Amino acid sequence: MTTKINHQWRLAGRPVGMLKESDFKWAEEPVQSPGDNQVLVHNLYLSLDPANRGWVREEGSYMAPISLGAVMAGFTIGVVEESRHPNFQPGDNVQGLLGWQEYSVADGATLTKLPNNPAIPLTAYMGLFGPIGLTAYFGLLDITHPKEGETLVVSAAAGAVGSIVGQIGKIKGCQVVGIAGSDEKCKWITEELGYDRAINYKKEDVREALKKACPSGIDIYFDNVGGEILDAVLRLINLHARISICGMISQYNATAPVPGPFNLINILTRRAKMEGFIVIDYLNRAQEAIADLSKWYMDGKIKYRVDVVDGLQNAPRAVNKLFDGSNQGKLIVKI
Amino acid sequence: MTTKINHQWRLAGRPVGMLKESDFKWAEEPVQSPGDNQVLVHNLYLSLDPANRGWVREEGSYMAPISLGAVMAGFTIGVVEESRHPNFQPGDNVQGLLGWQEYSVADGATLTKLPNNPAIPLTAYMGLFGPIGLTAYFGLLDITHPKEGETLVVSAAAGAVGSIVGQIGKIKGCQVVGIAGSDEKCKWITEELGYDRAINYKKEDVREALKKACPSGIDIYFDNVGGEILDAVLRLINLHARISICGMISQYNATAPVPGPFNLINILTRRAKMEGFIVIDYLNRAQEAIADLSKWYMDGKIKYRVDVVDGLQNAPRAVNKLFDGSNQGKLIVKI
Repeated sequence: MTTKINHQWRLAGRPVGMLKESDFKWAEEPVQSPGDNQVLVHNLYLSLDPANRGWVREEGSYMAPISLGAVMAGFTIGVVEESRHPNFQPGDNVQGLLGWQEYSVADGATLTKLPNNPAIPLTAYMGLFGPIGLTAYFGLLDITHPKEGETLVVSAAAGAVGSIVGQIGKIKGCQVVGIAGSDEKCKWITEELGYDRAINYKKEDVREALKKACPSGIDIYFDNVGGEILDAVLRLINLHARISICGMISQYNATAPVPGPFNLINILTRRAKMEGFIVIDYLNRAQEAIADLSKWYMDGKIKYRVDVVDGLQNAPRAVNKLFDGSNQGKLIVKI
Repeated sequence: MTTKINHQWRLAGRPVGMLKESDFKWAEEPVQSPGDNQVLVHNLYLSLDPANRGWVREEGSYMAPISLGAVMAGFTIGVVEESRHPNFQPGDNVQGLLGWQEYSVADGATLTKLPNNPAIPLTAYMGLFGPIGLTAYFGLLDITHPKEGETLVVSAAAGAVGSIVGQIGKIKGCQVVGIAGSDEKCKWITEELGYDRAINYKKEDVREALKKACPSGIDIYFDNVGGEILDAVLRLINLHARISICGMISQYNATAPVPGPFNLINILTRRAKMEGFIVIDYLNRAQEAIADLSKWYMDGKIKYRVDVVDGLQNAPRAVNKLFDGSNQGKLIVKI
């Protein structure tokens, strides 16, 4: 019997600025066998997310930093090949934080079994019905409580999370303005997703464009980027505005400390709220979100797209699509 | 019959940096007579507050900016001399936004009648039982919901609001750390007010001192100052920290835009909340606060002091005591 080989990307150095392929090492080792209560998973899809950049910072982020030499962390979907855990059988589809590798051995307790529903493609569990959808749902509804007629601004509006946030905003009756990085993206979010207005931040003066797009000011801001766009929004916030801080992608690759927004004082003068959140705090309420999201999806009120890159070997190059803005929808690697 | 003269401070120019006496003009005019539903008030005390600085900015703050030539705005306590409003009689003590002047004519609807309780000095209604006490009460309890054992940091801790915030924090069972600008103030808040620890920001490295004073991190920050101290706190916030933005006194005199904190990203990674508030949003709940504050005051759990400057003519010089840190307690001008 031949020993099966597990290909992996391991962290080779602490990245400075954008992630480079040389920050990772393509490695291989024999596929391990599961111990008691463990499961061997053959990974099919790897989710690439902006948060990955934070995970490799020496200072850590909301997780301890990934050690040099360790397999790079990432969410995957895979199929169970061998199980020594009572809840899993070979053939089950599962999701977990299983890393940038072809095979993973994991404690059964850390895995989520996915429903076997032929109407829903596996990749949807990385998107609309996975952490992405939950992030959009709770980050908007739980942090900002949108009300009919309010003006909602979304940055990275054509991204995986942002594209869902804007559609939920429309379902809740908001005026929704999206900020994105290309005319194609702006067209997609207004013509396909129902955003009321879109701003191409690479071509327009965001301050001026926001002022024009939000004649009644800004009640809610769903922030994926931080930096200058956050500052431009702060200038225009209304009394009792709510800012949901989902990401600060403009700063993840920063090589020096980044000053905060000049207009932070408006949090005081406009009695506004700025709150950070991370989806893992909401996992125990996932069913609540999935119930609403499924209904809206079936009713045709939420559209969704994925950007699938072929081959695990391309992961280090592909992850930068998140930072240079070239991805179109949820970025996934087909392993 | 002699015409009575009303002395006033009017705004003479748009201040740059600290307020100067030359930004105001000492003026006089005959005392006006009240019209229908109006009241003539003889002002006895003028409250000086950091917010005064914002009111004269050309860009305005939470109020429209005070016009050049207009009487400077300020809260006063006075006694009714003449009334054409059914709710007020000569001799009633009242409080209102009546300006830096000896006499004011105001609509009765804009005035608050003060209780006639000889046990409580009139100046207390500018402090513990006035906007200052309400600011401390709601800004801490309503925005941050302190829990027993949590670490609370207060800046401008010996100031009018800060000195009350720390004492309420102790009543709620928090570990309370105060930041103030002199050894005398630090001594006062620890020895008299019950703060657990104090940091003199003029002598100590605030980053290092905070780290030492808050070995379990910071759960709650009541911010009166913004700027570098806010930044130092953000470095140390715990998961689900709450930051109540009551003031940003470090920025009120700024002559150029001030960048925000470098560590704002921790709002995201620590899933924290930063919320601004202004006491006028809570005036309809004043009785709730006054009931608790009176009880704590009678029980000896809250101490309070005022810093009374004699003479309306000294108001423009006195107001800067708020910004150079030389006031000790709530700053009031005896008119």
